[in-house]
Order: sequence, then C-alpha cells, then structure tokens
Amino acid sequence: MNKVNIAIVGATGMVGTTFIKVLEERQFPIENIYFFASAKSKGQKISFMGAEYEIEELTESVFDRDIDIALFSAGGDISKKFAPIAKAKGVVVVDNSSFWRMDPDVPLVVPEVNASDVYNHNGIIANPNCSTIQCVVPLKVLDDAYKIKRIVYSTYQAVSGSGMKGIRDLEQGLLGNPPTNYPHPIANNCLPHIDVFMTGGYTKEEMKMIDETRKILGNPTLKVTATAVRVPVMNAHSVSINVEFENAFDLDDAIDMLSKSPGIIVMNDSPANDYPMPLNVSGTDEVYVGRIRRDESLDHGLNLWVVADNIRKGAATNTVQIAELLLQSR
Amino acid sequence: MNKVNIAIVGATGMVGTTFIKVLEERQFPIENIYFFASAKSKGQKISFMGAEYEIEELTESVFDRDIDIALFSAGGDISKKFAPIAKAKGVVVVDNSSFWRMDPDVPLVVPEVNASDVYNHNGIIANPNCSTIQCVVPLKVLDDAYKIKRIVYSTYQAVSGSGMKGIRDLEQGLLGNPPTNYPHPIANNCLPHIDVFMTGGYTKEEMKMIDETRKILGNPTLKVTATAVRVPVMNAHSVSINVEFENAFDLDDAIDMLSKSPGIIVMNDSPANDYPMPLNVSGTDEVYVGRIRRDESLDHGLNLWVVADNIRKGAATNTVQIAELLLQSR
Repeated sequence: MNKVNIAIVGATGMVGTTFIKVLEERQFPIENIYFFASAKSKGQKISFMGAEYEIEELTESVFDRDIDIALFSAGGDISKKFAPIAKAKGVVVVDNSSFWRMDPDVPLVVPEVNASDVYNHNGIIANPNCSTIQCVVPLKVLDDAYKIKRIVYSTYQAVSGSGMKGIRDLEQGLLGNPPTNYPHPIANNCLPHIDVFMTGGYTKEEMKMIDETRKILGNPTLKVTATAVRVPVMNAHSVSINVEFENAFDLDDAIDMLSKSPGIIVMNDSPANDYPMPLNVSGTDEVYVGRIRRDESLDHGLNLWVVADNIRKGAATNTVQIAELLLQSR
Repeated sequence: MNKVNIAIVGATGMVGTTFIKVLEERQFPIENIYFFASAKSKGQKISFMGAEYEIEELTESVFDRDIDIALFSAGGDISKKFAPIAKAKGVVVVDNSSFWRMDPDVPLVVPEVNASDVYNHNGIIANPNCSTIQCVVPLKVLDDAYKIKRIVYSTYQAVSGSGMKGIRDLEQGLLGNPPTNYPHPIANNCLPHIDVFMTGGYTKEEMKMIDETRKILGNPTLKVTATAVRVPVMNAHSVSINVEFENAFDLDDAIDMLSKSPGIIVMNDSPANDYPMPLNVSGTDEVYVGRIRRDESLDHGLNLWVVADNIRKGAATNTVQIAELLLQSR
C-alpha cells in the first residue's frame, strides 16, 4: 500500500486528538502529516509516531500542498468553508461535522454498513452522527436478514459528545459548580436536550438520528423516531433500540448473526450481569450489543441495548476507517 | 373527617421516612400513629408533628391494637408475611412492595388513574412500581381520549430507587470506591439492569412496568414493552415514552388535556430550555411531562418525556394518597 499525505483539521479538539491516537494504533501508512487548527493553537506541539509536529493555522492556502486526505473535526462552520476549498485542490475530505452529511452528493459512511458508498464520493465524505453510527452497525445486520419496518431510539449520551466543554461541565458540576456549556446542570441530572430545537419539537440530534439512519441504510422512507438524552457519564453513548421487522425472525439466529458480524461484540449473558455499559466500552473501537430480547408487543419485534465509545467508533475511528477504505481504492 | 390510627411498617427506610414527611405535609388526620421496623431499629426515636415516638419491633401482635390503616414499605418478604396478619385483624394495608401487586384480589392504585379501584379492596391495596406510576398518570389521560394501542418505555432511573444502598453506591462511586449494592459501578455509568433477570431476557423491573401498566389501565392485553436502566442520578426517575394510539389526535389538544389534569405539570416550552429533569422535579409530588411531540413514524404516535420523584409520587406520596381515598370512604 502506498503511503499517503494526511491533514488533520481541528487537531486540538477531543476528536482531533483521538484521530492522532487511532492513526498511530492502526499504523495508517502515512508519508507526511500536517496538523491544522485555529490561530489560537498555532505553534503548539503535537507528538505523532515518536516525532514532534507543530500545529499550523488553518487557512485556504494550506491545501496547496500535496495532501491526499484531510480528516476534518473542527465544527460545521469550518467544514462548510474549508471542505470545498480542500476538495477543489484535489484533497479528499473525510468530515466529522454534520454540515455535509445530508448533501445528496456526499456519501455518509459507516464502513461495516455501506463501505461501497465511499467510492461514489466527489471529494467529500461525511462521517455520521456518533449515536447513529453505533445503532446502524447492528441494525444493518438485522435489516438485511429481516427487513426493518420501524425503529424507536432512546439515547443515553455521554458528555464527551460535547467535547472538552461537556467534560468540564460534568467535572465541575460534581464539585457543585454551575454549568457553562449546557443550559442546565448535567451532574446528577438527565437533559432531554442535545443540540438545538427544530420545528416539530425535535432536537437537531434526534433529527440527525432519523435522517442519517435512513441515508446510511439506504431507505429514505424508513420509519424512525428518536429521543436523545444527555446523562452524567463521561464517555461512551448507550442507546435503547426498539425495532420492528417486516419478517419473522429466530432470536438465537439474530444473536448469532450479530456475534459473527465485523465490528460488533455481543455481550448478552444478562443473568451473569454481562451486558454493555459505558464503563466497560469506553476506550474500545467496537459496537457492543446486549439485552437482546424479543419484544412481545409486536409480531416481529426486538429490543437491544447498544453501547459504543462515541469519540472512537462514533467519530475518530469511523473516520479513519473511511480513510482506510479510500486507500484500498487507490 | 374522623381521625384515624395509622401504622408505618418500615419506618426507617427511605420510603418509610418519606411517609412521615408526606403525612405531616398533607396534615393527614391522625389520632394515633405507630412506627414499626426490624429488631435492629427498635427503640430509635422518630419525630412526627412535633412529638417524639419510639420505633417498635414489628411482630404479629402489634396489629392487635386499634389500627385503621398500615402503610407498608419494608420489602416483599415482610409484606408477604405481615400484610395478611394485619388484614385478618381488620387493618387495611397499603403496601408499597411488589409482592401483592398482581394478585387479582388486590387493587393496584394510582389515585389520578383508578381511584375507584380502592373501594374494591379486601384488606390489602398495592402501591405500584415507581416508574409505572409516573407513566400511567399522563397515559391514562391520553388513553381515555385516544385509546392507546402500544407503549414503548425506556427508563432513566435514579439510585434512590434502590434505597439508601443505591445512594451509597453512587456517592462512594464518585469518590472512586467500588459498589456494594449494584453488580457494577453506577458512578459515570449506565446499568441496563434493575431488579433480577427473568426468563425471556427481561428484568423484573421491566415486567413490572408491562404488567402493572396493564392492570392499572384496566387493559390486560395492552401492548407494552420496556427497557429499564439505572443512571447516575440521586433522585427522580425519567422515562422516554413512545405511544401509539388507535385514534387520531390533535397535538395541542393532547397537551392542553395533560395540562388540565390533576397531578400533572406540563413543562413543554422546549425552545426556552423548559423540560422536566430530575434536578428540577426531585422533592415534588407531581408528574412532570415535557418534550411532547408527534411521532411521525406512526399514523397516531406521540413521544413524551416524563419525570417524577420516585420516592414521593413513585412511592410515599402515592401511598398516602391511597390512604386519603380510604378516609373518604369511611
């Protein structure tokens, strides 16, 4: 495999610093790597594979150099402005913001689900919402087997999903200090409010889960609803998923299929207290599925409890996996 | 209203001590009050309405005195043994344990929902599961108006639901100490495990929510499913409820009806960050409903976020409300 030139945009953020760890861990074949961030981080040092690098300010001209792939995680406004600039200069952008995700010209990719969509890119590929990624990994397996009719999501999302600011609010809140990021305290509380409110009473996070599930599973009319809730957990999102299938299923078969699917770890020995939780999943790259049980209120219904590290599989790892797919196509 | 003689069984527990507060607050018309607990609490002092009382050991003979109503909250084993003894001696038992709830001879009562069931008692009346109580209060209003077809519950339950032991695990866990009550740490974690596992992969807590919802709403075949999760919150349970109706509904009408129903406070101005949360609900007696929005994945679907103090409305307050209904029938 040829080595490539990589740029990290948003190198100082929570996802940006995890890009660096994941690239190292996976021994991504890098020739040159460049780290970009806002002016205030310019000159900061970053260590990568034993060498030291200096963070440069992100400007239009940085993409004039020979960069193959740029991994963006610097917020929607930066992606809106700089992804087209990078793309125009021949860089393939893998973007972790929500800005480009629903653009019909931009593939929205979870490698375990729709890897081949990567190859239809026109210079920008979007990394999905963190909660959505961990749900579609098992749901794709089940959709292929039994055809999904409807999904009800209720999320239990960690504060790391809000970056350093979320972590700070929980840490300080546990010490009795007021929040500066969330509209209410998160310590000792649950906030049924993630991202901004849209028309119809849904939050943007909930609409992302609905719209992105449809796009990734390739079914624009799939029935999906969602309630997204922030809980006082540092890292790793959990989701209670209720799913209705068109077709009959055998529970043991479903569990067996999930167990054998790449990127999924089934922890389903409930009577032995073996089920996924944020604490035992944080720091890993897989999607953990447990509490798998028939929903007797439907002819063909299933309940699942799905946990994943939202910064790794929900963001950095998935983005690097997309970049790996790009390498394979070179 | 005539004054009555009251016994508190389990006077030292979290719910037992809250019985005392709620009886005081509501100026329950008490002639005599007796406090019972296990032998180890015998002789402890309790203050009630400015007077001091001594806790007595619970034995069969304590019910020989003139007691009108006994409020039990000392666990299923105590209720199993002592409720029939009390009943045989003419005491009406209002029991907060799960032991008698599904007995066809025992009414299971939430005063806002099925007050009249109280009057069919044969000496024992059961107080429902805490999570179930807060859900059926708004669901009854909606069921009467639009007829419920199916309910999907996902809970976010506070550690106070496990009593002092749950509180201790969270407090100590936040200091880095291992759990002694839960099978895994609850601090910084979510445990998809409340009460014991049953056949079929459900927990007893989830089965309580399914079975008790049916009994309280008077519909033994109602379609209900549940996922019950413990979250690192000290007090007040939250539930994400997805509900499907048989009949069409107008969203504003539904919100209006909920607002006007006794025992419900609607907090639904989401864009103003006004929604129920454990921190703003803990310590109150009402059921708080917010995030009320149409579920577009169904013809007649609704999502709700419901929060209540599980020790008060979910246990002590509801039990005292049942006792108040008994007074009215005297």
